[in-house]
Amino acid sequence: MRIIDEEALNDITTGSTVLGSGGGGDPYVGMLLARDAIRRFGPVQLVDVDEVPDTANMVFIAGIGAPGVLIEKLPRAAEYERVLGQLERFTGTTYDYVCPAEAGGLNAVTPFATAAARGLPVVDADGMGRAFPHLEMVTPTLYGGSATPFVMVDEHGNTMFLESTSNAWSEEYARAAVLASGANAAMALYPMTGAEAKQRLVRGALTLAQDLGRTIREARAAHTSPVDAVLEQQGGVLLFTGKVEEVERRNERGWTIGQAHLSGLDGDRDHTMTIHFQNENLAAERDGAMVATSPDLIMALELDTGTPIPAEEIRYGYRVAVLGLPADPHWRTAAGIELAGPRRFGYEHDYRPVEEFAG
Amino acid sequence: MRIIDEEALNDITTGSTVLGSGGGGDPYVGMLLARDAIRRFGPVQLVDVDEVPDTANMVFIAGIGAPGVLIEKLPRAAEYERVLGQLERFTGTTYDYVCPAEAGGLNAVTPFATAAARGLPVVDADGMGRAFPHLEMVTPTLYGGSATPFVMVDEHGNTMFLESTSNAWSEEYARAAVLASGANAAMALYPMTGAEAKQRLVRGALTLAQDLGRTIREARAAHTSPVDAVLEQQGGVLLFTGKVEEVERRNERGWTIGQAHLSGLDGDRDHTMTIHFQNENLAAERDGAMVATSPDLIMALELDTGTPIPAEEIRYGYRVAVLGLPADPHWRTAAGIELAGPRRFGYEHDYRPVEEFAG
Repeated sequence: MRIIDEEALNDITTGSTVLGSGGGGDPYVGMLLARDAIRRFGPVQLVDVDEVPDTANMVFIAGIGAPGVLIEKLPRAAEYERVLGQLERFTGTTYDYVCPAEAGGLNAVTPFATAAARGLPVVDADGMGRAFPHLEMVTPTLYGGSATPFVMVDEHGNTMFLESTSNAWSEEYARAAVLASGANAAMALYPMTGAEAKQRLVRGALTLAQDLGRTIREARAAHTSPVDAVLEQQGGVLLFTGKVEEVERRNERGWTIGQAHLSGLDGDRDHTMTIHFQNENLAAERDGAMVATSPDLIMALELDTGTPIPAEEIRYGYRVAVLGLPADPHWRTAAGIELAGPRRFGYEHDYRPVEEFAG
Repeated sequence: MRIIDEEALNDITTGSTVLGSGGGGDPYVGMLLARDAIRRFGPVQLVDVDEVPDTANMVFIAGIGAPGVLIEKLPRAAEYERVLGQLERFTGTTYDYVCPAEAGGLNAVTPFATAAARGLPVVDADGMGRAFPHLEMVTPTLYGGSATPFVMVDEHGNTMFLESTSNAWSEEYARAAVLASGANAAMALYPMTGAEAKQRLVRGALTLAQDLGRTIREARAAHTSPVDAVLEQQGGVLLFTGKVEEVERRNERGWTIGQAHLSGLDGDRDHTMTIHFQNENLAAERDGAMVATSPDLIMALELDTGTPIPAEEIRYGYRVAVLGLPADPHWRTAAGIELAGPRRFGYEHDYRPVEEFAG
């Protein structure tokens, strides 16, 4: 157990942008939300999943919406403070721990708002080890875990409770509801026991985000390359060094969908890269050949500062290093690749671990 | 109290098509559903709203979807049999009576499936006295009644519970959910007491539907004009006699939206009529001038047989009488016209009672 202070929150914010793999919503707005809740209600404990009793009840807390909308509309703390009590009323169960659904992006820190308001610990784990655009794409799905009973509260005071027969149906209902409500809502979902969490979650996901954030912060302070430091820490691959030439981007059913086209710099001069995104970066082609796909992480870091550039913000002129980082082992199973691999997103390409493209 | 037998159900089916005002879904598929439930579970009692004790709990039962979808996909009895139990589990309340939300169209008879399965009476009333395309457009809304707690069950086994801060938000969520689920679902909504029902509902709405159906049936048998008989019974206005020349129709967010263009016959030769519909017929223009609008009922009956022609089925070649029938007095109040009058549907036109166009 350790206490999350504001420096820790800042490092998690930076690191969760990297884990966002281009998506997951702007962690900065999540950090403001979490920091405000901590200032009002007091500090929050972060506990390892092994510290959670097997019989304890816990639940994911997450926001949902199109990242482009979240930038224009700050999420409100009230929904995150309210959502857990609504689930408890609905299920008649008390939850003792909250946990991020995705340590990538905004949702790495939204559970802190709920935790601070309720005096509950946050579990240092998540259901992705990154960010994904569909709520069924979490590791509990790989083990038969259900997204429901599920509660969504919106900023208009509406509460939607759901019991679904599959996590894909939960995604359909949640996506439809968030669009109906104005594209910004808080959810409590995937209730599970401590025993289930130990089997099903990506362990240490918030510590991973914090380590990534600290690595970038310290490299900047030492005037060394944040890109090199991240690659070394994560065992990742430098996929490309280049300049953004053109970005196609559209909003569709609450998702930000498009491609970023890059031309090479330095050793990649005369080469090109195209990054495909649906909220998150999902595939990268180098000179027209696929070199990285989901579930591995594809992330553009600004070349000089190591600042992670989300897909919704990438634009002409950015000079970036495109990194491929290995997904958590949960995702590199046959079931993981089926749930969140390239074919699931419409790319007619077999998954190949990103390290195999190295050297 | 009286028992609804199959002849009564058939008459209600014909009459509810007239009250559907061009929409409400095909009552024939609702009748099949209700008849099957009555054959399996036994007859259903119809009770007057005055027979419902003030403290009794009752609720609307209704299906939701685009009429065009309902024709292709028959609603399944299972959802109507299941939905009330889900509401009871959610609210911890037992409901002793069910009631149609709209006596116009399919939803006039869907509550019979629930009532038969549960051995409950149906209340001879509704929340519209016709059909409307939005679920907040019911007379309880005019008296502060809430659509929630609300339950929707779909054919995939998903259950959505809702608590909303306005009936317009309930409509947004329900519409989004039914589209997400595949455009066919059963709902239990607007829970109310017997005392509230006596104030808020359109009384005798199912008897009205049955009377309309019987009037058409008897006129046909007597070889007299069903159109004249309906006008006489309802105090309505013959707006136009003509032939359908062209229909524009599109599906949009689950609604069937468009116009039917008619050329005149008999006394209306050299005149034209355009009927505007959004699921229901909402406005009628004669020679370009508005002659009838919602909340009054606009209905096309086949000239010879009196068969009511829904907006989703009207097409080139039909010879029809277009009738304007006065809406229930609940709707002719300032609040009623604001909720369901012409401006609510985007027509820049003040409401004028349809009888004023007579003579």
